[in-house]
Amino acid sequence: MIDVALFGAGRIGSIHAGNLAKEAGARLKYVVDPNAKAGKALADRHGARASTVAEVFEDGSVKAVLICSSTDTHADLIQAAAAAGKQIFCEKPVDLDLARARTCADDVKRAGVACLIGFQRRYDPTFSALKARILKGEIGTPEMLVVTSRDPGAPPIPYIRSSGGIFKDMLIHDFDIFRWILDDEAETVHANGSCLVDPAIAEAGDADCTAVTIRTKRGRLCQINTSRRAAYGYDQRFEVLGSEGMLQAGNHAPTAVVSSTAAAVSRDLPEHFFLERYRAAYANELAHFFAVLAGREKLRTTIDDGVKALELADAATTSWKEGRIVRL
Amino acid sequence: MIDVALFGAGRIGSIHAGNLAKEAGARLKYVVDPNAKAGKALADRHGARASTVAEVFEDGSVKAVLICSSTDTHADLIQAAAAAGKQIFCEKPVDLDLARARTCADDVKRAGVACLIGFQRRYDPTFSALKARILKGEIGTPEMLVVTSRDPGAPPIPYIRSSGGIFKDMLIHDFDIFRWILDDEAETVHANGSCLVDPAIAEAGDADCTAVTIRTKRGRLCQINTSRRAAYGYDQRFEVLGSEGMLQAGNHAPTAVVSSTAAAVSRDLPEHFFLERYRAAYANELAHFFAVLAGREKLRTTIDDGVKALELADAATTSWKEGRIVRL
Amino acid sequence: MIDVALFGAGRIGSIHAGNLAKEAGARLKYVVDPNAKAGKALADRHGARASTVAEVFEDGSVKAVLICSSTDTHADLIQAAAAAGKQIFCEKPVDLDLARARTCADDVKRAGVACLIGFQRRYDPTFSALKARILKGEIGTPEMLVVTSRDPGAPPIPYIRSSGGIFKDMLIHDFDIFRWILDDEAETVHANGSCLVDPAIAEAGDADCTAVTIRTKRGRLCQINTSRRAAYGYDQRFEVLGSEGMLQAGNHAPTAVVSSTAAAVSRDLPEHFFLERYRAAYANELAHFFAVLAGREKLRTTIDDGVKALELADAATTSWKEGRIVRL
Amino acid sequence: MIDVALFGAGRIGSIHAGNLAKEAGARLKYVVDPNAKAGKALADRHGARASTVAEVFEDGSVKAVLICSSTDTHADLIQAAAAAGKQIFCEKPVDLDLARARTCADDVKRAGVACLIGFQRRYDPTFSALKARILKGEIGTPEMLVVTSRDPGAPPIPYIRSSGGIFKDMLIHDFDIFRWILDDEAETVHANGSCLVDPAIAEAGDADCTAVTIRTKRGRLCQINTSRRAAYGYDQRFEVLGSEGMLQAGNHAPTAVVSSTAAAVSRDLPEHFFLERYRAAYANELAHFFAVLAGREKLRTTIDDGVKALELADAATTSWKEGRIVRL
Repeated sequence: MIDVALFGAGRIGSIHAGNLAKEAGARLKYVVDPNAKAGKALADRHGARASTVAEVFEDGSVKAVLICSSTDTHADLIQAAAAAGKQIFCEKPVDLDLARARTCADDVKRAGVACLIGFQRRYDPTFSALKARILKGEIGTPEMLVVTSRDPGAPPIPYIRSSGGIFKDMLIHDFDIFRWILDDEAETVHANGSCLVDPAIAEAGDADCTAVTIRTKRGRLCQINTSRRAAYGYDQRFEVLGSEGMLQAGNHAPTAVVSSTAAAVSRDLPEHFFLERYRAAYANELAHFFAVLAGREKLRTTIDDGVKALELADAATTSWKEGRIVRL
Repeated sequence: MIDVALFGAGRIGSIHAGNLAKEAGARLKYVVDPNAKAGKALADRHGARASTVAEVFEDGSVKAVLICSSTDTHADLIQAAAAAGKQIFCEKPVDLDLARARTCADDVKRAGVACLIGFQRRYDPTFSALKARILKGEIGTPEMLVVTSRDPGAPPIPYIRSSGGIFKDMLIHDFDIFRWILDDEAETVHANGSCLVDPAIAEAGDADCTAVTIRTKRGRLCQINTSRRAAYGYDQRFEVLGSEGMLQAGNHAPTAVVSSTAAAVSRDLPEHFFLERYRAAYANELAHFFAVLAGREKLRTTIDDGVKALELADAATTSWKEGRIVRL
Repeated sequence: MIDVALFGAGRIGSIHAGNLAKEAGARLKYVVDPNAKAGKALADRHGARASTVAEVFEDGSVKAVLICSSTDTHADLIQAAAAAGKQIFCEKPVDLDLARARTCADDVKRAGVACLIGFQRRYDPTFSALKARILKGEIGTPEMLVVTSRDPGAPPIPYIRSSGGIFKDMLIHDFDIFRWILDDEAETVHANGSCLVDPAIAEAGDADCTAVTIRTKRGRLCQINTSRRAAYGYDQRFEVLGSEGMLQAGNHAPTAVVSSTAAAVSRDLPEHFFLERYRAAYANELAHFFAVLAGREKLRTTIDDGVKALELADAATTSWKEGRIVRL
Repeated sequence: MIDVALFGAGRIGSIHAGNLAKEAGARLKYVVDPNAKAGKALADRHGARASTVAEVFEDGSVKAVLICSSTDTHADLIQAAAAAGKQIFCEKPVDLDLARARTCADDVKRAGVACLIGFQRRYDPTFSALKARILKGEIGTPEMLVVTSRDPGAPPIPYIRSSGGIFKDMLIHDFDIFRWILDDEAETVHANGSCLVDPAIAEAGDADCTAVTIRTKRGRLCQINTSRRAAYGYDQRFEVLGSEGMLQAGNHAPTAVVSSTAAAVSRDLPEHFFLERYRAAYANELAHFFAVLAGREKLRTTIDDGVKALELADAATTSWKEGRIVRL
C-alpha cells in the first residue's frame, strides 16, 4: 500500500483524489492546501488528513505526491519532492519559466524518481485509440496534423493575467498532442494570434484566438487553431493525414439521442468542458501513474515532455509577439 | 448507514457490488452464493462476509437486499425479503411464471417495501434523456415506436432451455421500454418468430429472431425487431415518432475515432454487450435505489412494471406459438 | 430513334418527359392529357404534340408509351398498348383491383412487350448500391428487414378516398422493396393500422399509420412502419440484417452543412418529398427502360412485380380490416 | 437566343457544353480546340460547328464565350473577347502572371463586359447554403476559417511543371473560398510547404503538402491545409467559427448506405474528384452566367476575384520559397 500526499484541494485535486480512491494499492494520507477549509473538507471525504508541505516531506512513509496546486508552486514542489525521493505526479505546466522547468527536469532525473506531467489527453479513450491505430500502420506514414482546440468561454481576466498567456496556458496541451501524435520535433513555429472574443484580453496583453503552424524536422506539417470561445461548447478534435488515409478524433457527446423536428436533425452538443470531456482520461492517467510505480507500465509522459511543450509555447509566444517564424 | 446483502456473486452481482461501494450511505455486509468460493471472493473484495440466505433474513440490521441470483430463486427471495421487511432490488424477471410474479407483487405491496425491478435501460443516459425530451413535448404526442434489439451472439443452448424463451429472456427489456416510452398499455400483441441463427435453438423450442407488433389502448403502434445475433455487436436502438418530430436513441461507441482509408470511412462498432453498454445505467439504477431508500426519489420501476412486462412476454409467446393475435 | 407517347402531363409525367429529353435514342412525339392546356404546355416544352389516346395507338411509328395518367386509366392503357404492340412504362399501380391487374399481366405477356412498372426506388443510388452489396455477400444471408416509410404530410381527403387505401397507395412501394431486398415471397402478412394524424382519414375509411409484419416462405421477417406525417419531412429508410452484418439505407440531405450553436449540433432535414428524393431514381429508371428497349439491359421491374406488390397490399388491407393474420 | 462559342473541348469544356444544352435562352454555335478531332466531336454532340479563334471573334452573332482552353491561352482570349465586346466565362486562373491578369481585368472593365471567373465552389449547394447561413447571422460574426483541401492523387509531373506551382494551381480555389467566406482581405500570408507525397514533385520545384495561415485586415484568422494525395479520395471541407457558433461544410458521398460488419461501421468514401463533387456547382455556375447575361442576376465572381486569388497565390509562393511572412 502506497501512501500518497495531495497538494491542492481544488477542482482538479478533487478529481485525482476521487480516482485515487479506486486504486487498490494506494491511499491518500495527506491533503495540503493554503485554504485550510478546502483542504480539510477534501481530506475528510477520503479518510485523509489535512497537513502542511513540511509534514509531507518529512514523512518517509509518503512515497508519492500529486501536485495539483497553483502553477507558481509546481517547480518548488517538484524539486522538494525529487529531493525527498518521492514519486511525482504534477499537473501541467512544470513552470511558466522555461529555464526553471529545465532545472526541475534535471533535478528529477538526478533523483531518479518518476515524474508524470499531467497531459491527460494522451489517456483519453478516443485519442489513445487513435494513436494506437497510427502505430499499427492504419494510415501509413503520418504527414499532416490539424488540431482544433476551443474552450466554451474565456476565463476571468485576472486568470488570464497570471496564466503565462494563451500559448502556455491553453495551447500547451495542443503542443503535447502535436509531439505525441506526429512523433516528431518542431523545426519551425509560426503563431498568429488575434483578439476577437474580448478586448479586455488584448488589454491584458494576450490573444484569444490563435493559428499556429509547426513544421517538423522530418518536414511534416501541423496546424493548430484555437479560440477561447466556442458557443457550442468544448471543441477538442484533431485529424491526422497519413500516406494511406486519415484518422479523426471527434468530440464526445453526453448521449446518442438524435432529434428530427421541422427545424433540423440535431444531436447533443459536445461534453461541456474538460472535467466532463476528460473524466475517463484523468482516471486512466492516474491508474497509469500507479501502474508505473508498481512496475507494471513504463512512464508515458515525462517531465521532458513537459519541458518540450513549454519550449513550443515559448517559441509560439515569441512568434506571435514579434511577427516572425521562430526556428527551434 | 444501510447494511445490504447481495444474493448472487456472478457477473451482474459483481457490478452492483462495485456500484454499491460508491454509495456513501450504504455498505455491503453479506454476499450469498451457492458457489461458496465465488461468494467469498466477491465478499472479500468489498469488505463483506460470505453468508447464507437464512443468516441474511435473520439479521435485522440488513435493511436492503440485492437479488442477482439465478432467475428461479427470484420469487422466493422477493417473498422472503418482503416478509422480513427488507427493501428489495431484484434483477428481471420477477419470475418466469406470471401467476407467481403476481403473487410476489401482492406480497411486496402488503409488506410496504420498495421493490425495484432491474430494467436498467430506463437509467441509461441516452434513453433517459430521450424520455425526458418526450415529456418536455419536443416531438408532440408520441405515436409510433420502433425498437431494434440485437445481441452480439446467442447464448449456449442449456441457457436457452431454462430461459423461458426469447420473449421472456430477451424481449422483456424491450416490452418495458415500450411501456415506459409510449406511456400506454398494450391492447393487442402479435409476435412472429423464426429460427435463422442456429437450428439447435429451434430444437430447444425457441426462436432466435422475432418481429413483434403491439397496438396500445390509445391506438399507438410499436414494432420490435430482435435477433440473437448481430455480427457487428450489441445493437440497442429505438426511435419514437411523434406528431411533431422523431427522437432516436443510437448505439454508443467506445471512441469517437473516424477512419478514412481507400476502403471506407468507418467508425467504431457499438459497445460490445450489455455490461459495457449499460455500465452507466447500472450505476444510475443502484444510485436511484438508494435515493429511494433515503426518501430523496420516488421509485421509478416497480414490481408492477416487472409483472406488466411479463404479461407482454407471455402474450407474445402465445401469439408466436399459436400464430394469432393476442388481446390483453 | 424511338418515338414515344406520354399519357399524363402532371407532375410525374413532366419529370419523365424531362428525363426522356436526355435520351439520345428516343424522342417525345405525343402528350395526351384530358386537361388539354396542360397537355399542350408540356408537349410544347419538349417539341412534341398534344394528342389523343386514339391517335397514339393508331400511329405505328410510336414504339413506346409512358403511362403517367391517373390510376384508374392504367389498366385500359396497358391493355391497349399491349394490343398495339407498344413497349410500356407505367407508373404504379397496375390497377387497384387485383384481378384486373392480373389480366393486364396476362395481356402483356401474350403481347410479348416490355412493361416496366414504376417502382422507382429500385433505381435510387442508395437503394440500388445497397442491393448490389447484398448480392456481393457483404452481410451474408439476409434475415430481417426493417422499413421506415413516412410522408411529410397527408394528402387531401378526396385523394385518400380514391387512393385504394394506404396499403395500395403508399405501402405498395414498401412491399416492392420487401420483395426486392429479401428476394423472397410472403407467406403471411399481418397489418395493423391506426388513425393518429387526422380523424378525417378514419372517416374516409383509411388508416394513416401502419405497422406491417411479413414472414417469408424461407422464414425471414420484415417489419414496415409508415405514417402519413413526419414533421421533419420525407423519411425513407430501411435496414437489412444479415448473418454477417447490417446494411442501412439512410435519408438524403440537400447539403452537407453541419451547424453547431449553443442550441445543438444540427444537419439538414431530409430532402422534402419524393420528387426531390427520387430525382436520380426517376432518371435512372427511364434510362433503364430505354436500355431495355435497345437490348442493352434486362427488364428489372416487370408487371409481375406490380401484381405481386398489389397482392401484398390486398392482403395487408384484409389483415387490417379483419384484425387477423393473412396467409398468402 | 444567345449564340455562344466554346474554347476548349476537354473534360471541363464538355461539362460546360452539357450544361449549356439545358439553357433555354442560349445555344452553342462554335467549338474551338487545337485538337481538331476533339473539337469536332464535341461540336457534333451539341449541334454546333468546329471553328477557329478568328472566326469566333469575327462573328458578331456570338454574344458570349466560354474559355475552357489551357491556362496559357486564357489571357489572350479574355482580351480578344473583351475587345470584341463579348460576354466572358473563363475557367481559373486568369493567368499565371499577376501583372498580366491585372491587365486583363482592366481590359474587361474598359470593355464593360461581364467576365465570370470559374470559381465553381461558390455555386456548390453545400458551400452556398453555408454562406447564406452566415449572411443570415446564424453564427454571429465569422472569426476563424479552417479549410481542408486534398486531391485523391497527384497529377503527372509534366502537369506540375507547367501548373505555376501548387499555390496557383490548387490553392487558388481555397484562396477564393477564404475571401468569399470571411468577406475580408488578407493582411499577411504565411505558407509552409513540404514534399511528402512524391520526391519528383520536389525536383520539379514544387510542394505537395501545404499549410497556409492568413490574417485578415480585421484580424480574422484562416488556416488552409492541402495535400496532393488523400488515400480516401477528394477531401473538400471547411469550417467557420463565429461568435455564436460554427458552420461546417462536409464532403458529399455518392450514397447514404451504412454498413455494419464485424470489422466496422462504415460509410461511402467522398465523391471521387472534382467532376463528381462539383457536378451541381458547374451547372449552377453556368446557369448564373446566363442569368447575369439576361439581367436576372448580378455577377457573383468577377475578374477582380480572379486577380485577388492570384495575389494570394503569389504571396503564398513567395512566403514558402523565402521562408517568411508576406504582407499584402
